[in-house]
Amino acid sequence: MATQLLKGKKGLIFGALNEQSIAWKVAERAVEEGAEIVLTNTAVSIRMGTIGKLAEKCNTIVVPADATSVADLENLIDKTMEHFGGKFDFMLHSIGMSPNVRKGVPYESLNYDYLSKTLDISAISFHKAMQVARAKDAINDWGSIVALSYQAAQRTVCEYGDMADAKALLESIARSFGYILGREKKIRVNTVSQSPTLTTAGSGVAGLADLLGYAERMSPLGNASAEDCADYILTLFSDYTRKVTMQNLFHDGGFSSTGISNEIIDIYFKGTADERE
Amino acid sequence: MATQLLKGKKGLIFGALNEQSIAWKVAERAVEEGAEIVLTNTAVSIRMGTIGKLAEKCNTIVVPADATSVADLENLIDKTMEHFGGKFDFMLHSIGMSPNVRKGVPYESLNYDYLSKTLDISAISFHKAMQVARAKDAINDWGSIVALSYQAAQRTVCEYGDMADAKALLESIARSFGYILGREKKIRVNTVSQSPTLTTAGSGVAGLADLLGYAERMSPLGNASAEDCADYILTLFSDYTRKVTMQNLFHDGGFSSTGISNEIIDIYFKGTADERE
Amino acid sequence: MATQLLKGKKGLIFGALNEQSIAWKVAERAVEEGAEIVLTNTAVSIRMGTIGKLAEKCNTIVVPADATSVADLENLIDKTMEHFGGKFDFMLHSIGMSPNVRKGVPYESLNYDYLSKTLDISAISFHKAMQVARAKDAINDWGSIVALSYQAAQRTVCEYGDMADAKALLESIARSFGYILGREKKIRVNTVSQSPTLTTAGSGVAGLADLLGYAERMSPLGNASAEDCADYILTLFSDYTRKVTMQNLFHDGGFSSTGISNEIIDIYFKGTADERE
Amino acid sequence: MATQLLKGKKGLIFGALNEQSIAWKVAERAVEEGAEIVLTNTAVSIRMGTIGKLAEKCNTIVVPADATSVADLENLIDKTMEHFGGKFDFMLHSIGMSPNVRKGVPYESLNYDYLSKTLDISAISFHKAMQVARAKDAINDWGSIVALSYQAAQRTVCEYGDMADAKALLESIARSFGYILGREKKIRVNTVSQSPTLTTAGSGVAGLADLLGYAERMSPLGNASAEDCADYILTLFSDYTRKVTMQNLFHDGGFSSTGISNEIIDIYFKGTADERE
Repeated sequence: MATQLLKGKKGLIFGALNEQSIAWKVAERAVEEGAEIVLTNTAVSIRMGTIGKLAEKCNTIVVPADATSVADLENLIDKTMEHFGGKFDFMLHSIGMSPNVRKGVPYESLNYDYLSKTLDISAISFHKAMQVARAKDAINDWGSIVALSYQAAQRTVCEYGDMADAKALLESIARSFGYILGREKKIRVNTVSQSPTLTTAGSGVAGLADLLGYAERMSPLGNASAEDCADYILTLFSDYTRKVTMQNLFHDGGFSSTGISNEIIDIYFKGTADERE
Repeated sequence: MATQLLKGKKGLIFGALNEQSIAWKVAERAVEEGAEIVLTNTAVSIRMGTIGKLAEKCNTIVVPADATSVADLENLIDKTMEHFGGKFDFMLHSIGMSPNVRKGVPYESLNYDYLSKTLDISAISFHKAMQVARAKDAINDWGSIVALSYQAAQRTVCEYGDMADAKALLESIARSFGYILGREKKIRVNTVSQSPTLTTAGSGVAGLADLLGYAERMSPLGNASAEDCADYILTLFSDYTRKVTMQNLFHDGGFSSTGISNEIIDIYFKGTADERE
Repeated sequence: MATQLLKGKKGLIFGALNEQSIAWKVAERAVEEGAEIVLTNTAVSIRMGTIGKLAEKCNTIVVPADATSVADLENLIDKTMEHFGGKFDFMLHSIGMSPNVRKGVPYESLNYDYLSKTLDISAISFHKAMQVARAKDAINDWGSIVALSYQAAQRTVCEYGDMADAKALLESIARSFGYILGREKKIRVNTVSQSPTLTTAGSGVAGLADLLGYAERMSPLGNASAEDCADYILTLFSDYTRKVTMQNLFHDGGFSSTGISNEIIDIYFKGTADERE
Repeated sequence: MATQLLKGKKGLIFGALNEQSIAWKVAERAVEEGAEIVLTNTAVSIRMGTIGKLAEKCNTIVVPADATSVADLENLIDKTMEHFGGKFDFMLHSIGMSPNVRKGVPYESLNYDYLSKTLDISAISFHKAMQVARAKDAINDWGSIVALSYQAAQRTVCEYGDMADAKALLESIARSFGYILGREKKIRVNTVSQSPTLTTAGSGVAGLADLLGYAERMSPLGNASAEDCADYILTLFSDYTRKVTMQNLFHDGGFSSTGISNEIIDIYFKGTADERE
C-alpha cells in the first residue's frame, strides 16, 4: 500500500528509538508515502537505539533534543526548518516515560519529583513542542499534529501508574492547544489512543504480556499493531482529514467500545474453574 | 439508615416484580424515607410476581398499566393523581425486556418485530410516561425522574443483544426530554447505569453468573447491589440533587472507569495457563 | 487530491439525493479514488432528486430500495453483487428522516407512529442493511461500513427532536453490530458525527441557518463541509484504518471539544447589549 | 432541609476562603447535617479570607497547610486525627489556582514554571492529600473523597487556559487513586464538575460574567449555585452513594448534555442582527 498519500508533505517525528517504535514505523511509512521527514530523540535514546539506521533509510537527519527543554526544542525547530528550507506540515509526538513506573514505585506512594518528570516528559513536552513551533511560525496552514495516547487516560489500568495521569494531561493539552492552532492557522491537533503495543517503552509496564493477551481477546479486531498505527496516523497527516481536530481517536480494534467479549468470558470461565468444583 | 430524606414527597414507581427487583427496593426504601408511592406494572407481571405484598407493606395501591400503551398510561397518571390528591414529585422507570434475547435470537439475525417490541417496552415507554405525565401536568416543579440503564449502552456486552441499543435509546430520551422538562418545570431527568444485578429481568441474559463475577472482580468496590441502587436513586429523588439533569450516572463500584483490575489479570493468567505449558 | 486511495475497492452507497448530499460527494470522490460503486435510494428519492446524473458520472447503476424493507435490501444486495461479480468492500449509510420533525410535531407531543418511522428509517435500516449483507456474505474480509451521525446524539440540540434519539440508536447499532462483524470477518463499523450540513435532509431542521452559523463560530476550524466529510469517509473505507471500529468519530472542526469560543462570547456580548443598558 | 444526612460523620475540608467559596457552603451544610469537620487552607488564604468566622460557626479548628507540601499535609492529617480522636470519613478538595491565568499569560505562551505550579496546586495536591491520608490510615472504610472540577476538562473554554489541563489531570488522579482506595478500604473518590460559579477563585477568569450568563442560558435548569453544589456533595459524603466511585459527576443544570438551547439561539440571532441588514 503506497498511494503517495503524503506527497510533498514535510514532517518532524519525535520518539523513534528502534524498529519496534511506533514513531519508527510512522517515519518509514511517511517516506514511502512521499513525505520528507526530520527525526529527533534525546541524546541518550540516540545512543541506546538505532535511529541512525532509520535516518539513513529515510535519507534524513537526526537532531538530538530533550523535548522537556525549550532551548533544545528551539534548536530543533530551527534545524528542521533549515533542513526543509522553510515550514513543515506535520509533527508526531511519541514520547512517554515514568520514572515511578520504571522504578516500581507504586501509585499510592508516588515520588513527586518523579511524577513531575513523568508529566514533563510525557505530556508537557507536547505543549512545549507546539509552543516553540508556533513561536517560530514553523508549521504550514492546514498542518496536522498527533500525539500518542492510551486508554488508561479514561479507565484505570492496574500497573500503568502515573502514566495514566500523564496521558489524561496529554489529551487535554491536545484539545487546549488545538483550539488555538485551529483558529489561527487551521492546524489540527489530535491524539491517537493506541492498543497496548510491544515497544521498548511499553515493555516497562509490568505484566505487559497478559495485558496484551487480554486486550487481544477483548478487541473484536484484535490489537492494533505498530504498523497499523502508523498507517492510521498517515491519514491524520494527509489532506483527507482536515476538519478533524481536538479529538482523542481510539485505534484499538474495538477494545474501547467492548464491555466484555465472548473470548474473555471463556477465559474467565476457565480461570475460575476451581471455584466451581 | 433513615433520615427522612424524602419526607413529604410522592412518587410513581414502574417495574417492581418481586423482592429481587430494583424497583421493589426503591419502593421500600422511599417509604422508609418518608415518601408516599404508587406502584404500577403490567397485568401479567402483577400476576407473575408478588407486587401485592409490596403494596401492602407500603400502604398503597397497584395500578395495572402496560407502559407501551398511552391509554393505560393516561389511566395510570389519573389514578395516581387521584390517589395523591394532586401532583407528585418523582417517577422511576425500571422496565426492560427483549423478546429477541429472551427467545435466543442472536443480534445478527434479529427479528425486527421483536426489536420494535424491545425498543417500545424498554425505551419508548419512558418517553410515553413523561409525555403523558407532562400533558396532565402531573409532576411538581423541581420533581425528579429516573430510569435504569446499563453500561452496554456504551460498550458492547456479548449476549446482551438488542437491549444495548434499547438502553442507548433510553439514555438519549432522558437527555432530550430532560431538556424540555428542565426548562418548563425545573424537573430533572437522569438515568442510572447500574452494575449487572441478579433480578428476574437480569436473569434472562445468558451467562449472567459469569458476567456478575467478572464485573465483581473488575470493580474496585465490587458490584452495586439492588439495595445500593435504591439508596442511590433516593438521593436523586431528594432535594439535594436539584441541579443534576440529563446525566447518565454510573452506579457500578467503579467498573465503568476501570480498564483492567489486578483481580481480572490474575484470573486471566489462570485461565490461560494451558497456553504457557 | 486523488491518490487512488480506494483502488480496486467496491462499495454500496445509500442516500444520495442530489448534489448537496454527503452521499453524493462520497460517491464522486470514491470513484475518483479508484473505487467502483453501486448507488441506492428509495423510489421516491430517485424521482425527486438527480441520482441518475450521478450514476452516469460514476458509470454505475442505481438500485431502488426502501432501506426499511428487508425484501428490498435482499434484492439490493443481490443486484449489487451481480453488478460487481461478487463481494464488495464498503457500505455507506446516509439516511435520516423524522416525520415528527418534518411535520413540526414537538418532542414533548411525539406521534408514536411517526417515532417508529423515524427510528426505522434513520437507525434500524442500518441494522437491516448489515444483517442482510451478512446473511448473503456480501462483504469482503477487512471491509468497512460507515453511517452518518450528528452530535445531538450526545447533547440535546433544540429543534432536532426525535432525530437525536435516532442518532443515539444508530451509534449503538454500529457498536453492537461492529462487535459481531469484527470478530467474524474483520469488518469494521463506525459512525461519523458530522457538522451540521446544508443538505436537503438538513434543511428540514428549523433554524438551520442559525445552527450552522453558531457551529461555524464555535468550531476552531469552522464547520466541516459535505466535501470535507466525503474525504474523511474515504480514509475510513481505505486500508489505512483497518483497526478502527465501533467508534463514533467527530468530524466537526473541533465543535465537540469546544466549550465556548471567543467568537461565540463576542456574539453573546453583542446579543445581550440591551441587558447592560 | 436538614435530615441529619451526615450524622456522626467526620470530615476534612480544603479550600474555604470566604462566604462565596463552595468549600464554605459545604462546611456549613455538613455541620447542619450532623457532621463534625476540620478546616484547612494556606496561611495566606487564612489571612486574606474569613475562614476564622466559619470555624467559629462550625465549632471547629483551622489547620494551616499548603496542600502542595507533603510535610504540611502530614501535620494537617495528624492534627485532624487528633481533633477527631481518630479516623475520619470524608475529604473535600476545593483548590485551584493558575499563575498563568492570574497574570494573563496566554495559553500559547505559557510560563512553564507557572504551569508546574498550576498543576501542583490544582491537581497534584489532591494526590498528595490522599497519599498522606492513606499512609496515616486516616480515613474510615466506606469513606468518601470529592474534588471540584469544571467541564473545561472535556471541552476547551477560551480564557480558562492551563486550568483546563489541571482539571483533566485532577479527574484522572481521582480515577487512578479511586481504584486503589476502593480495593483497599472501600473508599470512593469522585470529582464534581460544577457550573461556573462566582467565587473568588472563579473571578480570576477573564469574562466570567459572560461565561456565567452563557452557561445560565444554555442550561435547562440554569447554573448550579455554590449552595446547590454543597447539597450535592453532601449526598456523595453520605452512605446513600457507597458504590459510586471514579466518576466525574456533572452538576451543572444540564449544561454538559446540551448542544444548543433555544435561549442561546435567540441571543445568537440578536447578536448577529447586523449581519442580516
